[in-house]
Amino acid sequence: MNRVDALRKAAFSTGKFDGYAVFNGVNLVYLAGFQGASALLVPRDGESVLYVYGVNYEMAKAESAGLRVELVERGENLMEKIAKQAIDGGINQLAVDSLGITCWQSLAKSLGNEKKLAADNGIVQELRKVKDEKEVKLLRKAAELTSLGMKVAYETVKAGLKEYDAAAEIEYAMRKKGSGGTAFETIVASGACSAFPHGGCSDKVIRNGDLVVVDIGAAYKWYCSDMTRTLAAGKASEKQKRLYEIVKQAQDRAFEALKPGIRAKDVDAAARQTIADAGYGEYFVHGLGHGVGLEVHEPPTLSPDSEDVLAAGNMVTVEPGVYLVGYGGIRIEDTVLVNEGGGEKLTCGPYALAAE
Amino acid sequence: MNRVDALRKAAFSTGKFDGYAVFNGVNLVYLAGFQGASALLVPRDGESVLYVYGVNYEMAKAESAGLRVELVERGENLMEKIAKQAIDGGINQLAVDSLGITCWQSLAKSLGNEKKLAADNGIVQELRKVKDEKEVKLLRKAAELTSLGMKVAYETVKAGLKEYDAAAEIEYAMRKKGSGGTAFETIVASGACSAFPHGGCSDKVIRNGDLVVVDIGAAYKWYCSDMTRTLAAGKASEKQKRLYEIVKQAQDRAFEALKPGIRAKDVDAAARQTIADAGYGEYFVHGLGHGVGLEVHEPPTLSPDSEDVLAAGNMVTVEPGVYLVGYGGIRIEDTVLVNEGGGEKLTCGPYALAAE
Repeated sequence: MNRVDALRKAAFSTGKFDGYAVFNGVNLVYLAGFQGASALLVPRDGESVLYVYGVNYEMAKAESAGLRVELVERGENLMEKIAKQAIDGGINQLAVDSLGITCWQSLAKSLGNEKKLAADNGIVQELRKVKDEKEVKLLRKAAELTSLGMKVAYETVKAGLKEYDAAAEIEYAMRKKGSGGTAFETIVASGACSAFPHGGCSDKVIRNGDLVVVDIGAAYKWYCSDMTRTLAAGKASEKQKRLYEIVKQAQDRAFEALKPGIRAKDVDAAARQTIADAGYGEYFVHGLGHGVGLEVHEPPTLSPDSEDVLAAGNMVTVEPGVYLVGYGGIRIEDTVLVNEGGGEKLTCGPYALAAE
Repeated sequence: MNRVDALRKAAFSTGKFDGYAVFNGVNLVYLAGFQGASALLVPRDGESVLYVYGVNYEMAKAESAGLRVELVERGENLMEKIAKQAIDGGINQLAVDSLGITCWQSLAKSLGNEKKLAADNGIVQELRKVKDEKEVKLLRKAAELTSLGMKVAYETVKAGLKEYDAAAEIEYAMRKKGSGGTAFETIVASGACSAFPHGGCSDKVIRNGDLVVVDIGAAYKWYCSDMTRTLAAGKASEKQKRLYEIVKQAQDRAFEALKPGIRAKDVDAAARQTIADAGYGEYFVHGLGHGVGLEVHEPPTLSPDSEDVLAAGNMVTVEPGVYLVGYGGIRIEDTVLVNEGGGEKLTCGPYALAAE
């Protein structure tokens, strides 16, 4: 079943809606196989229409097979255009995946009645949570490129180097093997900055004794990967080694717990309990992980207040961390596919504070 | 005047609102000088509050000077929290810069009355359109890094090379000089793909005779740059040269027209008329340009249906193009600062189909 048909089935089986409009850019890539559309209208009965402005029109026609591509002319109001097509097509209840308040108000006005509109982002997100074979293949490739970048990190990071020089070498290696840029802003955060989970990457010179959090992701044909290792510049101290072991054990416990049917919060708890037992519970200041796909952060969420239940085909990160403000932080992260039998790590690299 | 005070002045001078809540991530960076906040509540009377989840809380306290940082605890509902603080602070009319429909409905419900909410994105966008001295400095640096990347493009692009290999060299050069990653996905689009304005960058091998559109941008401390040159792989044909001259003339005419007080649509028209006069009007399928700042696409817009009027301090692209489907495309783009006396190009590089 193609993705638009899957959406149709999911959206219209309840009978609540007879039309579904997609505006979220990533959902559009997922459904149309093309980046650059502005909206997709899927009626219960009849042909789906992909709306594209002139700048991307020719590319849309070439790349989005199987969908009718409609040009949005300069000066045309997209919301009015969609409303008209929805009304002409006999749609009475239109759901949208996401829409800013200003566009929502404009679409409601064009439909003549706000009651004809409903917000329902969950449907496409649910579909996207379970990766199909084609997606897994692309995610594997993205993870492979990321692992290669991490290999370069282990070869490169050392005292005396600027953080961004390490990023340059890592990104270059991934690019040369086919990465389509990075899935997110590369983090090479050393010393005190490593204690901030999103510690950035600057012209700061890495110093001997620093912990260095390296959080990277290649992108491959729109699919993301996400991987973190923490290195020590110079000889690792006993405290650094002890903290590292705690975080590594937490990742192991979570990874072992990972399987279809488990509540995401229970996977988080497996890691969180390990860190708490070691006395560092309050320093694990974020959730254990998140889904990865066309976005680097997407459902499901692995955190104490997640309502998600994992299923085969989910692609998630497992990334416990301990962050000691003023001292430094340690995070270890892999991108993991949930298979019937349990988790399968797609990223791979040493679990060590330094190259071996 | 600091930016939050400028927002306060702009938002409350009309008397329509007595509170303003910022949710847009880029607006938050602009106002808080920090990336990773979830919202900012600015009351007409009283202290502003920056809302930050645990993952970024310590970093926010370290980096967002002058704002009260409030931790959003796990499980807390951010909309309820903001509504409570707004009500406790005596806010009767709350404007928001942007909000998805689901959050809007939740915030309205928490406020007890949808009439207490209004959408008004324009206020922060208006402030962001005119760059201050600090921003111009960062944008100059981003443009400088981008120009350096383009120099590498001229040295690198040739028949036999994969598109992404050229991207690797360009991005590496920018990174090594301090670029914080790219402002957008690098485009190296050769042959038929060059006829798509967003033609991507793949493992395609550049062939002799191809036009190659190279559209790149460094990012520097969150500020973007945007620059395009079109190269010919091998000896340029007479047709390629003729098309190039048309696009170059169009850029020149637009650049000459650029000054404070001119309507953005008139700058677009200067380029569009030049291309139309040469017989290629229908092949210039996008607007002439867009604002550049914390986002690579932001107001003002230079297009036939723009309502913007340019002002000193605007930072815009000037990027006419001609796209012949099945043949190839040519685009020439610079990032330009609008000064009192006219335009000043911040990106620089040869206007030529090949290195000289």
